[in-house]
This record gives sequence, structure tokens and C-alpha cells, in this order.
Amino acid sequence: MPKINIISLFKDILDDSSILLGEDLKSRFYHIWKTDMPLESLCLLLPRSTQEVSSILKICNENNQEIIIHGGLTNLVGSTISNKTQVVVSLEKMNKIIEIDEKSKTITCESGAIIEDIIDSVKDKDFLLPLNFGARGSAQIGGAVSTNAGGLRVFKYGMTRNLVMGIEVVLPDGTIISSLKKLMKDNSGYDLKQLFIGSEGTLGIVTKVVLRLYRLPKTRYTSLAVTNNYQNVLDLLKIMEDKLSSSLTGFELLWNDTYKQMVGDKTLYNKYLPDNFKYYVFIEYMGGDFENDYNLFEAVILDCVDKGVVEDAVIGKDDKEQVNIWGIREDVAVLAEEREFDQHFDISIPVGLIGEVIDKISGELKNCEGVKTVFPFGHVADGNIHFIIGKDSDDDELKFKINDIVYNNTQKVAGSISAEHGIGLDKKKYLIKSRSEDEIELMRLIKKSIDPKNILNPGRVI
Amino acid sequence: MPKINIISLFKDILDDSSILLGEDLKSRFYHIWKTDMPLESLCLLLPRSTQEVSSILKICNENNQEIIIHGGLTNLVGSTISNKTQVVVSLEKMNKIIEIDEKSKTITCESGAIIEDIIDSVKDKDFLLPLNFGARGSAQIGGAVSTNAGGLRVFKYGMTRNLVMGIEVVLPDGTIISSLKKLMKDNSGYDLKQLFIGSEGTLGIVTKVVLRLYRLPKTRYTSLAVTNNYQNVLDLLKIMEDKLSSSLTGFELLWNDTYKQMVGDKTLYNKYLPDNFKYYVFIEYMGGDFENDYNLFEAVILDCVDKGVVEDAVIGKDDKEQVNIWGIREDVAVLAEEREFDQHFDISIPVGLIGEVIDKISGELKNCEGVKTVFPFGHVADGNIHFIIGKDSDDDELKFKINDIVYNNTQKVAGSISAEHGIGLDKKKYLIKSRSEDEIELMRLIKKSIDPKNILNPGRVI
Repeated sequence: MPKINIISLFKDILDDSSILLGEDLKSRFYHIWKTDMPLESLCLLLPRSTQEVSSILKICNENNQEIIIHGGLTNLVGSTISNKTQVVVSLEKMNKIIEIDEKSKTITCESGAIIEDIIDSVKDKDFLLPLNFGARGSAQIGGAVSTNAGGLRVFKYGMTRNLVMGIEVVLPDGTIISSLKKLMKDNSGYDLKQLFIGSEGTLGIVTKVVLRLYRLPKTRYTSLAVTNNYQNVLDLLKIMEDKLSSSLTGFELLWNDTYKQMVGDKTLYNKYLPDNFKYYVFIEYMGGDFENDYNLFEAVILDCVDKGVVEDAVIGKDDKEQVNIWGIREDVAVLAEEREFDQHFDISIPVGLIGEVIDKISGELKNCEGVKTVFPFGHVADGNIHFIIGKDSDDDELKFKINDIVYNNTQKVAGSISAEHGIGLDKKKYLIKSRSEDEIELMRLIKKSIDPKNILNPGRVI
Repeated sequence: MPKINIISLFKDILDDSSILLGEDLKSRFYHIWKTDMPLESLCLLLPRSTQEVSSILKICNENNQEIIIHGGLTNLVGSTISNKTQVVVSLEKMNKIIEIDEKSKTITCESGAIIEDIIDSVKDKDFLLPLNFGARGSAQIGGAVSTNAGGLRVFKYGMTRNLVMGIEVVLPDGTIISSLKKLMKDNSGYDLKQLFIGSEGTLGIVTKVVLRLYRLPKTRYTSLAVTNNYQNVLDLLKIMEDKLSSSLTGFELLWNDTYKQMVGDKTLYNKYLPDNFKYYVFIEYMGGDFENDYNLFEAVILDCVDKGVVEDAVIGKDDKEQVNIWGIREDVAVLAEEREFDQHFDISIPVGLIGEVIDKISGELKNCEGVKTVFPFGHVADGNIHFIIGKDSDDDELKFKINDIVYNNTQKVAGSISAEHGIGLDKKKYLIKSRSEDEIELMRLIKKSIDPKNILNPGRVI
């Protein structure tokens, strides 16, 4: 069937401003970092309602038309790239915040809503949406739900999955599955939303979500502590959990090379502690009582220094110091700036094994000709470590060698090749290092049952 | 095919002590409350390993043999009942605790392990498995996972789903899906474990699990507070969340009639506060610092009384008082003791609407001829309210009328007919009041894809 027919079918259900074709596609792109690369696509559709999404999917399903879904285009595993035969559906016009229910502590929004806008919309009502990651100013909530995004607050609040109370999703055949409930507990049949969270848009298009809100903590204190021994990092975590209980909201780790780079000439960050320690731990405490909280936090940190659990520590006294300390942890772009051909990793490892596994991976990488810099850092209390590896060339052999070093060592300890970022296209080849053949076969069975014509985000994940 | 054949097939793979037949079945039962009713079954199988479970399922699948799965037999929705043509598989011999990993804060066990045994096994290592519900002394972890059990700690720690890090499950065709990972974060492909958690044994038999452990809180304080106004209950919750932050671990509610019964002649519980208030709120605070925590808790509660957020409040000063106070909330058997023909409900409602909806349901029930007592109570901060409704007769018409009152009012506010207990056989008829036709159709599609011969817990849920 000539493709022109399908566009005329779209024209029957969408107004002209919702269909971009030809020249108009040249101003569009597939990733926020690739704004100089025009989008390749048969057409780009901009539905304004769930009903329009449903109509689009019905047409595509009947015509075996492949669809690539666009959210905020911040995906890190190649999921949003498309070709000239594929229809791109962007949710950007479905960006309404529908309801903030203060009594039930929920927010309901369309899936194109920007995460930072959602966060801001509830802040002055003293609520926290705990999603917090670098791309929050561009990322859309539908994408965060579809990829089960993580970030800096997972240790306490969980991944996106834990924040989703209700969902509306359109299946490949156009069926609308709507369950926009404001319930923390619902064991009435299979929990269908779990299927769509984290399946990277391969099973349905998320159109609306209900998210759980938390009360905004009133106080925030930060400490940076140093040690040369991974067992001490674990001991410190245990003490913090025991003493600060669940007000411990962040526990992040930088290795020596990474810290050095973050406080070096390329940034403006104050170097609070010498750069000759092996581990730099970033601790965040959020509570409800300014004086009590600070006194407790200070006493616990001082006690850890006195007892030798850590070699030294500083506490951020005011907002400025806290911003500086967290900048050292979060502002990681500088780790990738120096060289052109970086490789980024996002692995998950049992918390107890992180010390030895990262030593092993770093050692092997540094022995690898062509590798210039190795910067590990991450959410140590969640077991999630990121690596940015700098190289001077884009040589494929080197790339695969580095992948093998990271993924094989991850596989040996039953880790995951993707803690947060997902599989997309880029990591598909390595999925077998995280999952068994039988698991992947079961994923395929589910995909085939729900999307038998393989029209939705084809080629992604499995 | 005569059924004798299938038993001979089981004999090829299991030793004699693992197959119970004929007279031996008379000492078995299908529910811990029905020990006087002999089990009806073709045979009862007691596998000792995942491999044996797999072999059993292969045989059953090839022979279209229906299977009913038995765990601790504490299910409340009729899921474990069987008939003479069905094979019962009990996981009770697979009850090993395999590993406690203190560094990664996980416990790995077989699915027949009793929940209380798991809790006890980690307690002296200062860890908490936050699963806590009445049946924990009999319930098995495999059943808790398969039904996504809830309980008294959901507000802070989430349902069972939130505690499962890894799972091993056997599919109807005998395929073993093993993913016993100790990872908090894993976005490598579809999160398959979510399919099996809460699907009530209709998609696979859970054989092993990895659970997340928390550090055991060091302090526990309790308060009972009273008010006549539901808005005050919500205000109190907000203040507790703001001031106690995430150390607020319990926030439960009793209505007047329920409180009266709990502190009346039938129990030994001390009546700390008069029985003429509409709402009785039970607050639990768990932290890490004895003196600080008590001082903060007391100050916050006193402030709420001073400001009129609650009419009055008491704080449990010592263990004995705390046990007494929580007994009033938890020891609910006395609510069901008086009459023979109780009906129990377990509904979920948006938190903001609980006051008015429960008033409406209670009012309609009390106007219903034949209803003698109406006792609402529950996990108000989770939106989960239980009802025990006492009657003098087992009349079907009355039963259905009561179901309609509770479920129709729940449906009107987009609630759930089952927050915790599941659907099983007993609530199947009412599933449509929580889920749309399209949702149920999607559940059926998934069931059919994974269990095409419908051999696993047939007739349950959908």
C-alpha cells in the first residue's frame, strides 16, 4: 500500500497543524543533543487527546505502519531514532496538568507534561514529586513512566514505578486502557500498569498518569565524608540508616579520579577536602525540624569521624555550601567534556560488592590501550554506578572491548547492564548479559501478544 | 485419559512421601480455618525443589491437568479450594532460608518459608522485613508475593511488591524463569517479576524470592488521638508527615462503633480515651534516637491538642502501653466473634474521600434490615478501609445487598473492591466494579498467552 494513503487517513482524524511532513520535518530532531540532525520520518503526528492517539494507532495497526514514540527526547539508549518509513508520534501537545488533589496527595497529568513543570506545580502547595534527575527540565512524564526513570531520590522514594498510582495507555490496536485511580493499594486483578512502566513504549503509548506526591521536607542538610576503604562506606551507610532512620534521603559516592576532575581546574567547585582519598561520600538528610535535625546530623557525622569510620567530613552550613557540595556530585557534564568519544555506563551491582567490582573494572579499563580517563560515580546505596570512560578515538574494536570489560564483570555478580537508562537500541546486543534466554523469550511472548504486528517502537528492547 | 496415568507420571519424578493420595488426603485441608474439612483433590504433591515443580508442571501441561497451588492457606478470597479432579501442589517443603546478605541487605528464600520465620531470622542482625499482617505466623512468602500482600507497614514501606528484588518462578509449561538478583534498580528489559507478583498464582508458581531488608528502627512510640471531624484526621496526617517526616510509620483509624467494641466488655484493653468520639487515630513513630525522638513526638502531639487539631490524645509511655494501644487497633477478631455470618470487606478509596464514603456506606448498611453490626477500621493513610459486618442470618439476598452497598459506593469514587486480599474466586463477580471490560480483556490475553491450557489456579481472578 503506498504510504500516501496512510497520511490521508491521518488527515481525516487530525487537523493540519497536528501533521508535519516534508520540509517541516527539517526543523525537528530525534534527540535534544542532536538538534543539527533533521528528523527522518514519514510524518510527525502531534495528537491533542487520548482519543486522537487511539485513532492514530488504529490506523497504523490496520496498515502495519511502524511508529516511533517521542517524549522529551532525553533518552540515552537510542530509543527515539527513526527512519523515513516510520511515523513519529510526539506527545508534546498533551502536556496538561489535569488535577492536583491535595487531600489524596496525587497529581494527574497528560504524558507530555515536563517533569520540572510538575515538580514546580506542587512545590508551593508543600508537596514533593521525588523524581529528580538531570534531564528533568526537558523530560516528559510519559517518557519517565515508560522507561521507569530513576535518579537521585531512589534510595528513599523508589523508581518512577513506585510513584505511579494510575495510568491511561493506548494499546497498539487503539484500545484505551484507562485506570486513573488515586489508590496506593489495589489488588483487584493483575496490576496492568506494571506492564507499561519500564517497557520503553513497546507495549502501548502512555497518555495520562496519576502520581503519588509526598509532603515536602522542611529541612535539608548535606555532608561530604571521605575514606579509603569500601567497608567503611558500608559501615557509614549502616550508621546513617540507624541514626537518621528514614530521613536519610541521599547517599552517593565518587571515586578519587572523579572527585579530582570535579574539583579541578575545569570547574568552580570549592575543594572542601583533600583529593587524596579513595572514596567521597555525599550524604543528604531531609527532615521536619531545623534545630533538632541539624544537631542530630552534626552529632552523627562527628561521631563517625571520632570513631574512624571516615577519615574526615564537612557539613554544608548554608544553602550555598550545600549547592556547592551537591554540584561536585551532580554536575557530571565536565567528566565528559574533555574527550569526544566517551562511553557511558549505568550498571547495577549488589551493594556489598561495589567496592571490589568497580576496582576490578577500573583496573582493567586503565590497562586497556586507548582509554584515557575512567570516571566512576553513582547511587551507591541503590547499587547503581555510572561510568564515563574517555577515549581519543571512535574505534569499534576498542568500544566493544570496553563494553565487554564492564558488562562481563557486571554479569559475573548477577548485576544489571542497565539500572536506569533502559535497553533501547543501543544495549540490545548486551541484554543477554542481564537476562536469561528464557526471560527474553517471555518478554517476546508478551510483546507478541499485545503488539502482534510489531508496530510500536519496533526493534527496541527485544 | 484415565487419571491414574498422571499419578504414575508423578511417581516417576517424586518419591512416595511427596505424593499424598486417597486416605492420606483426609488429614489435609484447604484453609487454616477449615481444619475439619478434608481436602478434595486428585492428589497432593509436595515438591522439594524448583526442578520438581518444573517436572510437575510439564506433566500437567502435557495432560491438561488443572493445578491448585497451596501456600500457608491463609487466603481470604477462596483461592485455595480444590475439587477431586484437581492436583494440589503445596510448597511447604520448600521452606529454606537460603541466604541473608547483610551487606546488600537482602534475604533469599524458598517460597514455602513462613513469613514470621523470615522476620525472626533477620531481627537479631538488626534488620527488618517490613511485612506485617495478622496471618504472618502461617502465611508463606510465596503466597504473600503471589497475592502482593499488604498489612500494617504499607504507608512507609509499600506492599510486598516493593520488597521483592528477585524472583524465581515456574511457568505452566515447566520453564524456569530465574532472576534471583539483589538489585534495587534494574531496567534491563521488561520487569517480568511484576507479572507474577499479585497475579494470584494464575501465571506461574513462585519458587524462590529475594527480598529487600531495612535496618531495624531503634525506637517506637505510639499515640492514640481523637476527633469528630474527618478533615481533622487529614490535617493531623499532614502535620505528622511534616514534623515527623518519614519516621511516621503508622497512621490507622477506628470509627466510633469499632472502638467501642474493641474496648468493651469482650476485651481486656484499657480504654485510654472516652468512647464518644467519632474517629480514633493510631499513630506510630519509629526512629533512631530514644530521647530526641520521644521529645519530638510528644511536642508534636501536644501541639495538635493545643491547636484543636485533635480533641485529645495519649502517648504510650512504655512497651506495655504501646501493646495495649495497638491491640485496640489490631486484635480485630473480637469484631467478628459475636455473630456467625459476618461479611468482611477490604476496599481502597482515595484518602481525601474516606470520611464521606464510609459515612455513606455505614449509613446505608445500618438501614439494611438484617445487619446487626457495622465495624469499619483500617489503614487510612493508605486509603485502605476494612469492614466487618455482622448479621444473624446467611440469607443470600441480604449478602448480595450488602455487597452492592459496599462495592457500588466504592465504584462511584474510582476505588478498589480489593486493596489487599485479592480477587480469588469470591470476588470475581465484582471485579467489573474495579476494572473496565478492556482491562479484564487484557488480563485474559496475558493469562492465555502464558497459560494457554488454563491449568494454573483455573477460575481464579478472571
